[in-house]
Amino acid sequence: MQVKAAVAYKSGTPLSIETVELAGPKAGEVLVEIKASGVCHTDAFTLSGDDPEGIFPAILGHEGAGVVVEVGAGVASVKPGDHVIPLYTPECRQCEYCLSQKTNLCQAIRTTQGQGVMPDGTSRFSLQGKPIFHYMGTSTFAQYTVMPEISVAKIREDAPFDKVCYIGCGVTTGIGAVINTAKVQPGDRVVVFGLGGIGLNVIQGARMVGASMIIGVDVNPSRQVLAEKFGMTHFVNPREVDGDLVAYLVSLTKGGADHSFECVGNVDLMRQALECCHKGWGVSTIVGVAGAGKEISTRPFQLVTGRVWKGSAFGGARGRTDVPRIVDWYMEGKINIDDLITHVMPIEQINEAFDLMHEGKSIRSVVTF
Amino acid sequence: MQVKAAVAYKSGTPLSIETVELAGPKAGEVLVEIKASGVCHTDAFTLSGDDPEGIFPAILGHEGAGVVVEVGAGVASVKPGDHVIPLYTPECRQCEYCLSQKTNLCQAIRTTQGQGVMPDGTSRFSLQGKPIFHYMGTSTFAQYTVMPEISVAKIREDAPFDKVCYIGCGVTTGIGAVINTAKVQPGDRVVVFGLGGIGLNVIQGARMVGASMIIGVDVNPSRQVLAEKFGMTHFVNPREVDGDLVAYLVSLTKGGADHSFECVGNVDLMRQALECCHKGWGVSTIVGVAGAGKEISTRPFQLVTGRVWKGSAFGGARGRTDVPRIVDWYMEGKINIDDLITHVMPIEQINEAFDLMHEGKSIRSVVTF
Repeated sequence: MQVKAAVAYKSGTPLSIETVELAGPKAGEVLVEIKASGVCHTDAFTLSGDDPEGIFPAILGHEGAGVVVEVGAGVASVKPGDHVIPLYTPECRQCEYCLSQKTNLCQAIRTTQGQGVMPDGTSRFSLQGKPIFHYMGTSTFAQYTVMPEISVAKIREDAPFDKVCYIGCGVTTGIGAVINTAKVQPGDRVVVFGLGGIGLNVIQGARMVGASMIIGVDVNPSRQVLAEKFGMTHFVNPREVDGDLVAYLVSLTKGGADHSFECVGNVDLMRQALECCHKGWGVSTIVGVAGAGKEISTRPFQLVTGRVWKGSAFGGARGRTDVPRIVDWYMEGKINIDDLITHVMPIEQINEAFDLMHEGKSIRSVVTF
Repeated sequence: MQVKAAVAYKSGTPLSIETVELAGPKAGEVLVEIKASGVCHTDAFTLSGDDPEGIFPAILGHEGAGVVVEVGAGVASVKPGDHVIPLYTPECRQCEYCLSQKTNLCQAIRTTQGQGVMPDGTSRFSLQGKPIFHYMGTSTFAQYTVMPEISVAKIREDAPFDKVCYIGCGVTTGIGAVINTAKVQPGDRVVVFGLGGIGLNVIQGARMVGASMIIGVDVNPSRQVLAEKFGMTHFVNPREVDGDLVAYLVSLTKGGADHSFECVGNVDLMRQALECCHKGWGVSTIVGVAGAGKEISTRPFQLVTGRVWKGSAFGGARGRTDVPRIVDWYMEGKINIDDLITHVMPIEQINEAFDLMHEGKSIRSVVTF
């Protein structure tokens, strides 16, 4: 079939709106009509050329929501008409990782997904007879896309696509890091480095589970009002702190944070996030993605005296299990997504969404079809 | 009273056997006759002068066992005649740390202990009218010593002093890291870096809780036979591995270690220990003490993909609660201490114990009174 899509021909250039060819779903695959898709920093990272694993030409996008149109042979968990959110972290429920109950990093299709193809080793997208690669197993910057069955989460049908698409990445990454990875407890004191989309979702996750003190750290004071709306109790601008930021945060938390989260991708902040944790039990969770080759460092004494350093990918969420639950939370008013979607535009204007992101003018832009 | 003690007058010089003056216990303190004391790397570290917190003149020693002789006012948990093991990590059961149930790092007397004095700010030891400092709150290189009540664990009376003294530090540090800090589970694959006293105790801890694969890593092949006796299932000599050690260990463990332990104090090994852990859930625990100023590093991707970096001090053990239990395990034959005590000598020969340690000829030397 012919589908409209934003094609990334090569790194460092704008996306191009094209009509590409999409083959139907093979066994174990589903064809999904994408209704809306968020534009995420990870898309921009790959498009920039900095992603060493980036493959071109490709159809980017990994934060979508849509409707199942057709299913391939053997697909039993979804049917045409079902509303779904694509999962760049699948959940096969069969592999060693899924069965371990200790991680969400399903490995069932890791290799082919990384190669930009479906599990059979081929792409469903093509243009003028030449294949176009899939991206993160999802390629949501297309009006229709094909995905493995294990890469879609079935959600309720009354959820608005242009809001819950954000649950496909940012919302789940932030809230999940709090709930699944860090397991923040009621009464905990939490420090969040970075008040972008991820940081704001960490903040509302911390509020949801009953954290008593939620400190946001950002050099951009314009983020304070929005962050407070999401549950931040204290704002710290490092540029306005006299002396050492870590010592300031330890003092503010009366001994250190029970939990800290790095939501920027800066290794220096990751160190500060660890070291502002409470001796004896503070846990620091890395959520941000650092640049290639960057390394974190600290004195081992920080760990020997009881701090724990961990990280979170896709919020530690098992997509097919946890994503529908987060959609419910949104529909029940437990979490706020509307105020994070700062821009909505048709797919034809997707390059403006990247511009807004680079200029720091958006929290999240969503493109629609 | 007059007591025989090994005095450290200053760093870098041998200990000197002296008769020093010991004042009786004040309120909340106990006077203990030390029957035996292990000689630990930490004593050597302080004596060397490398310990930035070392204070002289002092009576070193922190791995003892003995009998309560006299108690000060208000002491209720022990009485004269009780057998005890001194605790350099006390357990007051009243401070924020003890009550958190999340750490063993009781802070009740941290400041004064670090200053080499009892909680009232003075030392009980003196020589020719000048104070000699306490060390780690224990000073077990003396025939009699005074400690806070919260710094002694009452143990059964049939346990031999010259064996269970080792539970005062090395045994608990190793076994406790496995049980309390890492929480190794039955069937886990474990990698242990360093087969000294701590590493061997980590190994027997891992065996005790049912680990299925226990890999020991050491450049000294002479440690293999003893380590196997303690439960090691595979020996890896890095000097005999072609190529990358981490990749070798990941292959040997079929994907990575569920748990790794660094028991040397080398920051390069700490990195290898983290990176040989299993993606998704592997936990690396730092037990060794690194040199001043040394830092650990890794790419944050290691943590974002599910590995956890933590550390352990005194095996995460609450001394008054856990140490008596470990003494029981020894008496019941669950753990082996006898084969780790390679040398026993009178206190007068204590400098030989340090020499044996520096020459790598002992696992643990014990001095007796």
